[in-house]
Amino acid sequence: MAEDFQIGPLNHVGIAVPDITEAIETYKTIYGATDITTPFDMPEQGVKVCFVNLPNSQIELIEPLNEASPIHNFIQKNPKGGQHHVCFEVRDIHEAVEEMGKRGATVLNEPRIGAHGTPIIFVHPKNSNGVLIELMETPKGDH
Amino acid sequence: MAEDFQIGPLNHVGIAVPDITEAIETYKTIYGATDITTPFDMPEQGVKVCFVNLPNSQIELIEPLNEASPIHNFIQKNPKGGQHHVCFEVRDIHEAVEEMGKRGATVLNEPRIGAHGTPIIFVHPKNSNGVLIELMETPKGDH
Repeated sequence: MAEDFQIGPLNHVGIAVPDITEAIETYKTIYGATDITTPFDMPEQGVKVCFVNLPNSQIELIEPLNEASPIHNFIQKNPKGGQHHVCFEVRDIHEAVEEMGKRGATVLNEPRIGAHGTPIIFVHPKNSNGVLIELMETPKGDH
Repeated sequence: MAEDFQIGPLNHVGIAVPDITEAIETYKTIYGATDITTPFDMPEQGVKVCFVNLPNSQIELIEPLNEASPIHNFIQKNPKGGQHHVCFEVRDIHEAVEEMGKRGATVLNEPRIGAHGTPIIFVHPKNSNGVLIELMETPKGDH
């Protein structure tokens, strides 16, 4: 079945921001977003995140929790923030890891539980036109 | 009605690439994408574009047509490519222009017809956490 492995829906676009409270305010006041989740810390990843819910997808706002955060360097280079990654859903994370390997792409981490409660991996930007790509197992019951 | 103005679906993520043919190959061979439109030139914008169709959204691949292209500088800075903009749908582009003005955001162009055949504007990244945002009128009949 693996030859037919493919990405599914675009789950979210990850946007790194220096201040998540200000970023939420921007999405509310400029873009009229009304459905934004409460930010929560993911201390193991060194980030605070929340989601701007759109009718078909989400924007993930990501603030570094500290200087050890993997997002810290990104914000140093992009002080106003910027697009950090694109996340596609996959049906099975272990199949995704195996297929990325077979297809010559570099997976950056062992599968771990992401902000949606399902396992995720990141694929190196060199394999995708300079874009950091997250692959996330579709939450059960979502599709 | 304008106070209730808000962004709708995430129509696409724009990814600038140095070579659209190679980028298409990447999405096919690594990510298994099977529905990718044929690239076409938009000479007035200085770009060649195509769309990777996902179940809920799209990736827009954008190659600069020449050195005068607005994408040319981006590729100079990011030779492998990278995330260039995020596009949200809006119900009416003129309302969007008016509301962006009222809400203190800087619109970068007069509405013009975009790759989907409906009018679009771009909003300055300084108003959106360093992210260039495209607002695109929803094609009639789509929703």
